[in-house]
Amino acid sequence: MHGASMALSEFELITRYFRTCGAQRRDVALGVGDDAALLECPPGMQLVATTDTLVAGVHFPTSAPAASIGHRALAVNLSDIAAMGARPAWALLALTLPAADEAWLTEFAAGFGSLARAHEVALAGGDTTRGPLTITVQLLGHVPHGRALTRAGGRAGDLLFVSGSPGDAGAGLAIEQGRLAAPPAAAPYLRERFLLPTPRVALGERLRDYARACIDVSDGLLGDAAKLAAASGVGLEIFFGELPVSAPLLQALGPDAARELALTAGDDYELLFAVDPARAAELERELPPAQWNYRQIGVLRAAPGAVVTRDGTVMEFSHSGYQHFA
Amino acid sequence: MHGASMALSEFELITRYFRTCGAQRRDVALGVGDDAALLECPPGMQLVATTDTLVAGVHFPTSAPAASIGHRALAVNLSDIAAMGARPAWALLALTLPAADEAWLTEFAAGFGSLARAHEVALAGGDTTRGPLTITVQLLGHVPHGRALTRAGGRAGDLLFVSGSPGDAGAGLAIEQGRLAAPPAAAPYLRERFLLPTPRVALGERLRDYARACIDVSDGLLGDAAKLAAASGVGLEIFFGELPVSAPLLQALGPDAARELALTAGDDYELLFAVDPARAAELERELPPAQWNYRQIGVLRAAPGAVVTRDGTVMEFSHSGYQHFA
Repeated sequence: MHGASMALSEFELITRYFRTCGAQRRDVALGVGDDAALLECPPGMQLVATTDTLVAGVHFPTSAPAASIGHRALAVNLSDIAAMGARPAWALLALTLPAADEAWLTEFAAGFGSLARAHEVALAGGDTTRGPLTITVQLLGHVPHGRALTRAGGRAGDLLFVSGSPGDAGAGLAIEQGRLAAPPAAAPYLRERFLLPTPRVALGERLRDYARACIDVSDGLLGDAAKLAAASGVGLEIFFGELPVSAPLLQALGPDAARELALTAGDDYELLFAVDPARAAELERELPPAQWNYRQIGVLRAAPGAVVTRDGTVMEFSHSGYQHFA
Repeated sequence: MHGASMALSEFELITRYFRTCGAQRRDVALGVGDDAALLECPPGMQLVATTDTLVAGVHFPTSAPAASIGHRALAVNLSDIAAMGARPAWALLALTLPAADEAWLTEFAAGFGSLARAHEVALAGGDTTRGPLTITVQLLGHVPHGRALTRAGGRAGDLLFVSGSPGDAGAGLAIEQGRLAAPPAAAPYLRERFLLPTPRVALGERLRDYARACIDVSDGLLGDAAKLAAASGVGLEIFFGELPVSAPLLQALGPDAARELALTAGDDYELLFAVDPARAAELERELPPAQWNYRQIGVLRAAPGAVVTRDGTVMEFSHSGYQHFA
């Protein structure tokens, strides 16, 4: 069971690479190195907790740079915290590795750590085990009591917005896997959108004041929008022509295929949110779309189901998003 | 990347098997099904957070019953919370599966859920992904402010106690793997000690009043005792003849090999704790050892290092505990 001898003990591994990897926070009373971490919950706040796993060969190509894997493992969890309108605080890292490769660990910790420090997230604990490369991060954050954004608050008539330019990461993954040949001017940007996604943490926190419902776009925009609508007990319409697509994605795919990918590709880690139309002007004044990088792409409707329309006509799609088991 | 079609979507999987799997708790404001869970921290308490991963073929044989895997994935984390003197509250489950096998999931959820309900732990969230069988649980609990037990509080002269009968689980694993042939009267008990370990949660909470340092015995008693001593800045002596070994383990191995296994085997999930000798009488009066199932096995000493003695003579061991990467 216990595998071949390797240079470093688990204990040394954890200590060396992760003890000072994240932000240093005063609310971590006891961090990495004991049986569990001790953390101080701020009064008046609810705790927000999420976990996401990345598996080599499933969620990223085994060829991905270690720094990207470290970045993405934290980013996908930051994106969930952002979708709740919360502020991240503490991470636990469960890292399963086939071998204790010091160069890989150094890079992984650099990718994880620099994103953690950028969001003031402390790495408070973890577990290192031997096995197929798998990374599970648990992220804890805070939100003022009763103020969290959920998927369930949307109402018919709400305007539906999305941040960023969905589809970029899906194209980047296809390039990384050799399934898509993009022009040299477009490829580096698209690959980076897959390898180093930007969780919209600051936007999520600000949206507490404006959005009625919010979801993290990770499994495909259309499928995730349908989840928000279903949780809110409504349907939705997405305006195909309004889907924001980046110039490199347009360059790589042309306008129609780019927008189809924006609807169905995964790995975006953008925010999709529903706003009362009566609040939209204030939202756009306080959080200018050009600066905060979001755009209206549809509406919530009373009729159930998710439809995409183009010039008022319903479009058909065979694939409504990434399902891990579908 | 996305694998072959299977019967159930990730979303349905999570909902069906895990939404009502654990205890129902009023401090879970929002559980499984949104981007993150919303939890209410009780005032005056510190949050205790831990994570542990089990990998098929590394931490358990691939032949292990699914109910045992579910039980163990939670038990190993409960044991960490117990070692802090804390009370568990909320779990997140990150489950990576090669396929969506409904019979397996039903059994897994039954094993996880019955232990969770026994300890009033709610399953507040999780992630289900496709890949090699790997289970990561994150467990959150509470401890009164400043009252947590750590590894670091022991002092020279403290009495060292251990709960249960270490070595049983190691023998059980060897039987499960066909490496050990135990008598028919002993084998079922030993296998069960591996497959269904008992985290000492109630004992851990009570030890807040008596112990100065505590650690979860998971990687081998001698190695874990050395970690406690090192964190406390002292050394330790274990009395070989005082090591508690179960009747089935004695029957399977005889007294010397049984005690060697008790020192070095992993997977015990017992508590090792250090007590001021001036408090020992009170400890044994308030928590009778026969009822709470623990025993003195050694002392902390000023001299650094970990030694095992038999009739006053130091014994030599080649292997001081399970290291995942050693």
